[in-house]
Amino acid sequence: MKRIPFQTVHAEFRRVLQSVGLTDVKANRCAELFAENTRDGVYSHGLNRFPGFVRGVQNGKVRPDVDPVCAQKFGSIEQWDGQTGIGLLNAETAMQRAVVIAKDNGLGCVGLRNTNHWMRAGAYGLQAADAGCIGICWTNTTILMPPWGSAEKKIGNNPLTLCVPYRGDHVLLDMAMSQYSNGKLEVLQRRGEELPLPGGYNRDGSLTTDPGAILDSKRALPIGYWKGSGLALILDLMATLIAGGDSTADIGARPDETNVSQVFIAIEIASIAGAQIVEDTVDHIIHDFQDVPSLDGVSQIRYPGEGMLATRKDNLENGIPVDPDLWTEILAM
Amino acid sequence: MKRIPFQTVHAEFRRVLQSVGLTDVKANRCAELFAENTRDGVYSHGLNRFPGFVRGVQNGKVRPDVDPVCAQKFGSIEQWDGQTGIGLLNAETAMQRAVVIAKDNGLGCVGLRNTNHWMRAGAYGLQAADAGCIGICWTNTTILMPPWGSAEKKIGNNPLTLCVPYRGDHVLLDMAMSQYSNGKLEVLQRRGEELPLPGGYNRDGSLTTDPGAILDSKRALPIGYWKGSGLALILDLMATLIAGGDSTADIGARPDETNVSQVFIAIEIASIAGAQIVEDTVDHIIHDFQDVPSLDGVSQIRYPGEGMLATRKDNLENGIPVDPDLWTEILAM
Repeated sequence: MKRIPFQTVHAEFRRVLQSVGLTDVKANRCAELFAENTRDGVYSHGLNRFPGFVRGVQNGKVRPDVDPVCAQKFGSIEQWDGQTGIGLLNAETAMQRAVVIAKDNGLGCVGLRNTNHWMRAGAYGLQAADAGCIGICWTNTTILMPPWGSAEKKIGNNPLTLCVPYRGDHVLLDMAMSQYSNGKLEVLQRRGEELPLPGGYNRDGSLTTDPGAILDSKRALPIGYWKGSGLALILDLMATLIAGGDSTADIGARPDETNVSQVFIAIEIASIAGAQIVEDTVDHIIHDFQDVPSLDGVSQIRYPGEGMLATRKDNLENGIPVDPDLWTEILAM
Repeated sequence: MKRIPFQTVHAEFRRVLQSVGLTDVKANRCAELFAENTRDGVYSHGLNRFPGFVRGVQNGKVRPDVDPVCAQKFGSIEQWDGQTGIGLLNAETAMQRAVVIAKDNGLGCVGLRNTNHWMRAGAYGLQAADAGCIGICWTNTTILMPPWGSAEKKIGNNPLTLCVPYRGDHVLLDMAMSQYSNGKLEVLQRRGEELPLPGGYNRDGSLTTDPGAILDSKRALPIGYWKGSGLALILDLMATLIAGGDSTADIGARPDETNVSQVFIAIEIASIAGAQIVEDTVDHIIHDFQDVPSLDGVSQIRYPGEGMLATRKDNLENGIPVDPDLWTEILAM
């Protein structure tokens, strides 16, 4: 792995995005989001997705020249149409709008339809928390998992983010409904490694840590067995209804994952609770949570998002780890 | 098991509750909620919790003579104080208030503090759906599970409900953050039975289906391993902040589980999407979800809440199954 300064990664992304037709403002912010995802250690949705994203812009799947528009509104809920524009910027606009509504009304909800992959769910939770709000958002996806009781893929993994503001060190949960992503299974299979914990079934119907056996059976495990299967379904239902958009079934009927539906909720917690009380309460809960002996082999109990903060610090100081071939590919774009 | 008509169960509950000081109106509704939980097959939070609830009223843990009051309000968020009254009725009042706010503003959020156990989380999701709203609610609890990476109990199992209106057959997800409840582990241990799927660790740190080994190690599995641990923490954070109430750490410091914090969110989906579109969309998604071959031994793929509807029908036709000794105890109260 090479390590490249954050600013260099950002600048190269920006240059490439400008070259495929994004305005300077859009290219700058979109490049920043990709670079920030990599900076924070979310390598699955940063640099390695960048060439694919650029191809999407080039082949018309992602339209760089449109902006999301408000299609409908009732009180503190709004439906926005992403017009198959840039998923990252559409999502940021939607959460920004939810925060603005929340500042006036205590909470705001924006459904976003016809949008593209937002890359990292957590980015928009952190955005709400930076504005002092609790942020809740989720997306539906194409078909990725079988429902509980079947071996045929039918439901999305529908990532969900919940974020609570905590000084700069927000508590951030960013989780898909599958125990392990297909990407993770493929990487471990190539390396000949086992999963640390059972992540699905083999063809004989036994739980296994063998990534190849899970890819073969197609029976990746939803979190909590039947519970994650039900949660994935209901998140799809809610996103489709609130956004007035396409469901996982609709998305899965197309060759590429486009026109996904997303929900953004912001809760202006400081106005109801008081900013100091919010900070003291989170302090109290987090300190108690961590005041527990850890098992052998576990250095300390971390709250969701805490490990990311350490990775961010390291990557800002020592450069962002990049695969040399991938970096060469991006420099040549 | 004896099977007793719903109306008889309801009437006996009402009689007992009147005898311990509930007004006729409160006794009637509280009895109905207990009877409905049992009717719907949620046996863990119906009849078998009733004697304990009555003792709580008698020993002053649950105050039957108070009503929840609105303590603070900002736009579409309100904080209510449950005054350690009847958890079931406090929760119903809070969700009713969230629905009223949603009817005017698209969505409403009520935080409820100083309340008691609401028994079945799903009851309040169904309540929102009966009013045409998407219902989301959750509660914190006393300390029940170790956080991921520790063997010491520190977090609650913090049940979460998401409910989408669907004619009368609402899609209802009602799930705790633990894979199996302690009650379930104890029942299976007494019967000498194994869990159907790994539900925790034994003392050697291996995943196991032996309920006794899990009770012994105290390491019950959160859904999705580290994911459910993080979700339980963040639900506690959000409930404590939004309600302005006690956290799991505060609750766990007392001998009994009281003064829990809860959140109720209602989304008036028909006003933004149109009632017919809501029904058609849910129809479309549910039918697609079920249009999949089931594995050997699985009769059909059910959506969350669907099995409950069949149980409800059976129990209304053939009577509610009750343990004869428990029923005799209730008749003698």
